[in-house]
Amino acid sequence: MHIHGRHPETGEQSWSTEIYQQIKEEVQKRCPVILNFSTGGFNMGVQDEAEKHRRLEYVHQTRPEMAALNMGSMNYAKYSQKRGTFVFDFVFMNPFGDMLLAAAAMRQGGVKPELECFDLGHLQNAAPLIAMGALKRPLQYSFVLGVLGGAPATSDTLAHMAKQVASDDTWEVIGISKVQWHLLATALVLGGNVRVGLEDNFYLDAAGTRMAEGNAPLVEKAVRMSRDVGREPMTVDEARQALSLPQQW
Amino acid sequence: MHIHGRHPETGEQSWSTEIYQQIKEEVQKRCPVILNFSTGGFNMGVQDEAEKHRRLEYVHQTRPEMAALNMGSMNYAKYSQKRGTFVFDFVFMNPFGDMLLAAAAMRQGGVKPELECFDLGHLQNAAPLIAMGALKRPLQYSFVLGVLGGAPATSDTLAHMAKQVASDDTWEVIGISKVQWHLLATALVLGGNVRVGLEDNFYLDAAGTRMAEGNAPLVEKAVRMSRDVGREPMTVDEARQALSLPQQW
Amino acid sequence: MHIHGRHPETGEQSWSTEIYQQIKEEVQKRCPVILNFSTGGFNMGVQDEAEKHRRLEYVHQTRPEMAALNMGSMNYAKYSQKRGTFVFDFVFMNPFGDMLLAAAAMRQGGVKPELECFDLGHLQNAAPLIAMGALKRPLQYSFVLGVLGGAPATSDTLAHMAKQVASDDTWEVIGISKVQWHLLATALVLGGNVRVGLEDNFYLDAAGTRMAEGNAPLVEKAVRMSRDVGREPMTVDEARQALSLPQQW
Amino acid sequence: MHIHGRHPETGEQSWSTEIYQQIKEEVQKRCPVILNFSTGGFNMGVQDEAEKHRRLEYVHQTRPEMAALNMGSMNYAKYSQKRGTFVFDFVFMNPFGDMLLAAAAMRQGGVKPELECFDLGHLQNAAPLIAMGALKRPLQYSFVLGVLGGAPATSDTLAHMAKQVASDDTWEVIGISKVQWHLLATALVLGGNVRVGLEDNFYLDAAGTRMAEGNAPLVEKAVRMSRDVGREPMTVDEARQALSLPQQW
Repeated sequence: MHIHGRHPETGEQSWSTEIYQQIKEEVQKRCPVILNFSTGGFNMGVQDEAEKHRRLEYVHQTRPEMAALNMGSMNYAKYSQKRGTFVFDFVFMNPFGDMLLAAAAMRQGGVKPELECFDLGHLQNAAPLIAMGALKRPLQYSFVLGVLGGAPATSDTLAHMAKQVASDDTWEVIGISKVQWHLLATALVLGGNVRVGLEDNFYLDAAGTRMAEGNAPLVEKAVRMSRDVGREPMTVDEARQALSLPQQW
Repeated sequence: MHIHGRHPETGEQSWSTEIYQQIKEEVQKRCPVILNFSTGGFNMGVQDEAEKHRRLEYVHQTRPEMAALNMGSMNYAKYSQKRGTFVFDFVFMNPFGDMLLAAAAMRQGGVKPELECFDLGHLQNAAPLIAMGALKRPLQYSFVLGVLGGAPATSDTLAHMAKQVASDDTWEVIGISKVQWHLLATALVLGGNVRVGLEDNFYLDAAGTRMAEGNAPLVEKAVRMSRDVGREPMTVDEARQALSLPQQW
Repeated sequence: MHIHGRHPETGEQSWSTEIYQQIKEEVQKRCPVILNFSTGGFNMGVQDEAEKHRRLEYVHQTRPEMAALNMGSMNYAKYSQKRGTFVFDFVFMNPFGDMLLAAAAMRQGGVKPELECFDLGHLQNAAPLIAMGALKRPLQYSFVLGVLGGAPATSDTLAHMAKQVASDDTWEVIGISKVQWHLLATALVLGGNVRVGLEDNFYLDAAGTRMAEGNAPLVEKAVRMSRDVGREPMTVDEARQALSLPQQW
Repeated sequence: MHIHGRHPETGEQSWSTEIYQQIKEEVQKRCPVILNFSTGGFNMGVQDEAEKHRRLEYVHQTRPEMAALNMGSMNYAKYSQKRGTFVFDFVFMNPFGDMLLAAAAMRQGGVKPELECFDLGHLQNAAPLIAMGALKRPLQYSFVLGVLGGAPATSDTLAHMAKQVASDDTWEVIGISKVQWHLLATALVLGGNVRVGLEDNFYLDAAGTRMAEGNAPLVEKAVRMSRDVGREPMTVDEARQALSLPQQW
């Protein structure tokens, strides 16, 4: 369960240890899922190294089992066909220096990184981090497809990305927006894992006409699709084992 | 012939129309090649839009037949296995806004862009620019492989990139450093074009032991390898036709 | 709807025009499907050319909209892991001479061939038959996977076969036995069509524990899986149009 | 060095132990190559099992280090575009029963089989033979491309075939006719080995205009192409080691 902490009042992105700790406790009271905290944005617009460190404190303080680690830079944009202009257009910056900071916070907290890869280069970026001891195998990759600036959201490209993964590492797909179900079905036949949820996609159908009332109907559909091709969802403990959790540094 | 203008005294990167004009004239006196000017760095470290425009003036003033257009952002880094650290580590920033500026300068000068793509996302970034009229098909792609931060320099990945190219567009490979000959051989069997030269690689052998005395021996080797698989290098005029030059806007 | 005619009493394979005619009439009374008759076995164990012609008479006499055409030779075998021996082991023989006979019978009856391909070579075999006028594009390919002697029943291989198909031709997958659902899911994301039914697979689940009570539950599952990835099954008339039926020779 | 024995007077295919023995001795006097004897045709047109055994005697009697083993059935044909007909059209028959006979002769003589695969199914056919103990890993595959009836002679297909090979097995390409140099170049970048020689191709150029005066110029060109991509040909002993020779049963 991938979670972005937000200020309960403003709804803005939070890096507060207190908020993340509260999230952790409340979730754990209710169900025994594997918690995965976002680290996105710890460095966006931030030049000050001390501030970057401060924004990563909740990671090693709250010690979720996993946390997301962005594995490279790229354009992050949205183009409106109708208006003929970009709705937004910025550079998503994750130089190796920042990756090292985030990875260090995870190592300190015994947290396993989920390597978020938007393109082929992002996968390749893992190599020097492994060599430096900043990452430790087996790795867990997430291929995020469907963002303008990143790799195309096609079955062919997902298959090619999956081929870059060593046999003892694991991977999942994160399909952004309407391509989600197509990519999820592709990952299921390729042997990958899948993520669904309202962060990525609002709709129960590929055409985008039936909005989901929450995360549960999206998960139910993903489970049905998995079983239809003969893949039974793991229990939480089986998933822990498959992901080599808890992470040993 | 891809050229970076430099100040004759300092050797530093130049955006001077005068220097590029002189290069053009001196080259044209000597041989009838297709000139392709770099636009790399027109935006690096530059926030001021007027300065960006100024740095692109030589493109539409000197009107080379082609100019390079960087198609996206990425980490651009080098890792030293020996030292266990990064030799350099920066973000190569080319948001869509900057691509639009460079493409406009080319359109204004009747220059055909060579789309430099370091990863899959960079290819995909062409789509909105075509929709906006900033690029015009047929396109010419260059796949630059061998840079840490970009796509891996493997035959498999080059084949996958080539499959993204529409049948009436064209592509070439630019292999950085030792991988050059391997990638060049791959492009030859995949039907792509190739670039060699001292900007990319110093060595005549794949192991990097025999340094080339100039561009000519590198080109000679590329020609031999092309003929060995039954592909005869084009004349300059045949290349113009294959690249749909001069560009019609 | 792919049909093998059988003697109503013995259950043995039939080449009788009368039997196929009766099948055609009874099916058409009940539902408006596209009929596709098997031609498998018209040549197995038969050397006599006149007898081969006789066994193909029902094709041009009963004029189904489609008929299956086997596109090459291969081993056709089954290995029992438990017993450590082959359950059966024969050569499925379809030299070009026999393909020409079957294709001629189809042409004579205005029947569109469904090209059954068990391996890459079988696809390639279409080329000379097109050149000779024995086949006419657009073609319909069926990739039959899961038979020992033919191509492996993997997503990778199905994707590779699909890439050999020209953009105005069409293809479907026929997964034999337990691999069916996996291959069906693969075809759905690759843009191919699918076939299910008791000829190919008895089971509703990939593990082979829940036997289907007929073709209908298999079709229902295929429809659900199609819709789950956003592909709505065609009506019969839409399918006719997609397959360019009736065939024009 | 792959060799077909022939009667010195008639030039016809021979299965004579005496002739193969003489070939072995004369070759070994001159150079220390790895001998690889053909077994093609031991079963063609032969129904009698005793005769099949007789035709395999030279394999275990003369004990070459390797021998070719055909791994499946297929059409084997040639189409003349000019005449619009097939120059020849037959079924190359290698049911599992016959493969077992040939493999047994090799096992008996301590001979390592070179698995000749004309299509994807042929690779897959190795699995039951391994399970039965008729083949022993590491395996050596030869992908024979360029025959009508087999897999298409393209870089894409060769890459796909190579992906089916387990990492501790080895493979080479055998390109028939004009496609040879293209396929050889492909194998070189894919990490495979290569075979050239007059059995496969007469010409030094891809267009088929410069006929080779013997095997040597073909080998010289292959060596040059290998070195051009940074792959130094092995010595005979290095090749033995790479191929795990002599075969241990």
